[in-house]
Amino acid sequence: MTPTADLVISGCTILEPGLTFRDDVTVVVRDGLIETITDGPPDGTPRDTGPHLDARGQIALPGLINCHTHAPMVALRGLAEDLPTEEWFNGVVWPVESNLTARDVTLGARLACAEMIRAGVTCFADHYFAMDAVAAVVEETGMRAHLGQAYFSSQGPRGREESLEFALRHRDGAGGRITTALAPHAPYTVTDADLAATAALAHDHGLPVHLHAAENRDQTEASLARHGATPVDVLERTGILDTDVLVAHGTGILDRDLPVLARARGHVSVATAPRGYLKFAWPTTTPVRALREIGIPVGLATDGAASNNSLDVWDSMALTALVQKSTTGDPRWLTARQALDHAGPQSAAALGLGDRVGTLAPGMRADLILVDLTGPHTQPVHDLAATLVHSARSSDVRTTIVDGRVLMRDRELLTVDVPAVVGELTSRLPALTDRGHGRRVQEYNT
Amino acid sequence: MTPTADLVISGCTILEPGLTFRDDVTVVVRDGLIETITDGPPDGTPRDTGPHLDARGQIALPGLINCHTHAPMVALRGLAEDLPTEEWFNGVVWPVESNLTARDVTLGARLACAEMIRAGVTCFADHYFAMDAVAAVVEETGMRAHLGQAYFSSQGPRGREESLEFALRHRDGAGGRITTALAPHAPYTVTDADLAATAALAHDHGLPVHLHAAENRDQTEASLARHGATPVDVLERTGILDTDVLVAHGTGILDRDLPVLARARGHVSVATAPRGYLKFAWPTTTPVRALREIGIPVGLATDGAASNNSLDVWDSMALTALVQKSTTGDPRWLTARQALDHAGPQSAAALGLGDRVGTLAPGMRADLILVDLTGPHTQPVHDLAATLVHSARSSDVRTTIVDGRVLMRDRELLTVDVPAVVGELTSRLPALTDRGHGRRVQEYNT
Repeated sequence: MTPTADLVISGCTILEPGLTFRDDVTVVVRDGLIETITDGPPDGTPRDTGPHLDARGQIALPGLINCHTHAPMVALRGLAEDLPTEEWFNGVVWPVESNLTARDVTLGARLACAEMIRAGVTCFADHYFAMDAVAAVVEETGMRAHLGQAYFSSQGPRGREESLEFALRHRDGAGGRITTALAPHAPYTVTDADLAATAALAHDHGLPVHLHAAENRDQTEASLARHGATPVDVLERTGILDTDVLVAHGTGILDRDLPVLARARGHVSVATAPRGYLKFAWPTTTPVRALREIGIPVGLATDGAASNNSLDVWDSMALTALVQKSTTGDPRWLTARQALDHAGPQSAAALGLGDRVGTLAPGMRADLILVDLTGPHTQPVHDLAATLVHSARSSDVRTTIVDGRVLMRDRELLTVDVPAVVGELTSRLPALTDRGHGRRVQEYNT
Repeated sequence: MTPTADLVISGCTILEPGLTFRDDVTVVVRDGLIETITDGPPDGTPRDTGPHLDARGQIALPGLINCHTHAPMVALRGLAEDLPTEEWFNGVVWPVESNLTARDVTLGARLACAEMIRAGVTCFADHYFAMDAVAAVVEETGMRAHLGQAYFSSQGPRGREESLEFALRHRDGAGGRITTALAPHAPYTVTDADLAATAALAHDHGLPVHLHAAENRDQTEASLARHGATPVDVLERTGILDTDVLVAHGTGILDRDLPVLARARGHVSVATAPRGYLKFAWPTTTPVRALREIGIPVGLATDGAASNNSLDVWDSMALTALVQKSTTGDPRWLTARQALDHAGPQSAAALGLGDRVGTLAPGMRADLILVDLTGPHTQPVHDLAATLVHSARSSDVRTTIVDGRVLMRDRELLTVDVPAVVGELTSRLPALTDRGHGRRVQEYNT
């Protein structure tokens, strides 16, 4: 063990487990972990000397976690606007994705990581295609990620086999920063038999599952009409709810699904990405309050930038609070403090990473961000939680650290060359966005 | 006329009237006006030489307009969180406002102007107390503003008289950057007789009116129960709808109010501030689509930062689009282009300033902002309107110009000393926020 620390951060206020703030602390980072959090300035002993980051006037928070995205879809940001869900899928996104190459995915993932690091996101759960390329970008950019290779039953058994092979090959990759999942697309694109086979593979190999389910109310109603079962029922009867499963969206979860989900408590979680639900004009949002009442963690997410238009988890945090107040009719619900709970511990739990990230305490991985609240839009501060959730913006994140490594310092990205990525990606857009061929990777038909 | 320009902006893409974008233009500013907009670089003749701003890669937009706020309330940002409307007013805001001094208002207005200039807001409609202090801050910071001294009937005739006296004294102040309005608080705090007297004063003195009305559905229902009339009916029968009137919020406007408002087309407008409606869990939002159908301009607003937590009109623009899609159930409605229309021409029209600001064309006042879209969160660009509304953030505004004067250059504020303002304001907060006295400026009782 080296006598000096890898990083010493001093002078900041820190958000501690239990959602309390502690002023003027020194955080010592060693071997990718938070070693100590102590009051006052560094004491000058060898154990807290090392590269120093003066964070006076800043707030240290757990790095934000994007619990469900399709990072490379930043390449399609703004391409499919103001469309209903079906046209968005069938008219634009799935035709365009039939052109997708591994190089497009590499460039999209790099741009997405740049965007997320600048927004204070330190970890993302990605569900997409050509995921080897995403894993390589996670390695090179220093991000943490939970990765799954998506598949449809229309691909035949090959899709599922490749998803398994990916998950096994990259598990614990990038020095432990990569975790993996099996990633069937959704109950409306993957058959019950394939979901059951996925559940069996998950058990055999000790892998979690990440999929879309009950994305919207239409899907739930179509499932009821076709199968006499909700998407959650389908997850249960195929054994998916017996695995460690992350469900994206769930705005179509019905009251009758809640006891089913409650039985899976401890190994089921939900990711909410409220901006897209508003944009698609879906009639409901994720039932966060009902899920909280039955002990299901709800993590924050952005979905892909083709629907959300950004990967701004800070925005998801504020919007989750606002939309939950509005949809429940209760201004007292989903307080700023609860929003921080969803952003940190619940998002980490949703990805099965609650023992590593999502809270700042000795022994946790050093995934943290430093937020500057000196801007006029965040002053004065009467209630730090409210300032963070409702006044601060992702652009107030000054510094982003993953596993003890500084990925952005004072707004300067250290691991992605954005102009180079944008230049090459832009040159590829005509080929990527061509829809003259009439192909689609899949048909949207709930 | 001087041979050289006051400012020459070159290399930018500009949003022109009719919501079309034109690439690589030179904008020449003289005497506070846009003199010319021409293709390509400056031609080197004396008429387009002068102080030069290289805006290559940036987008020139009309400065944003905050159509309804209480700027000095930034002092209370985060003080009254997660509360129902009545508790927010009666338990916190109105008790605290009974402590308010002109110095608090000066400092709050300075901080608010700093926040707005940094967010690309060039004009705001303010409705508050001690407005002489706000007018002085508008003068010193270089902002444009539409100001009204608020009053309740509980103040007796003095409130209305002071509102008139303020409006007359400051009309066309700050070199024409200040316009004024009579500012009764709302139909539930100002009697019919006082509203009628206000309407008469408006006619006598050629002044517009700015007030809250039908803020939420509860107010409308209480008005129906008490008077057998909606708040809009009250505005009509008291003559307020015969004046040039700006109505804040209107989430309680009913279908039956629409023909009444349609009869006032041409001199009534509405300001929408959707974030606060979500936060208060109000059951409805401003009926923007119905108002658009009857030709009533709807401007964008933030309300005060005590409810909205920021003065970020860019956020109001995106959120208006999202909430309108969601509440109408139509993803095709309130497109990004329509959002830009609300932000520019409709907001200017809402304040009676449509002949001066809100669009960029020769002869208009030079109120414009330059937006940087090189950040990873705004790339690639498939649809510039979508990128601006749904991906860009207020922090992407690099430069803010009002009446041809640069108030922020490359994110640096040139007319407000934020640390000095925050320092003095913070020292005053214990006195400002004391509620031990049991007083209120008014009672909330719809």
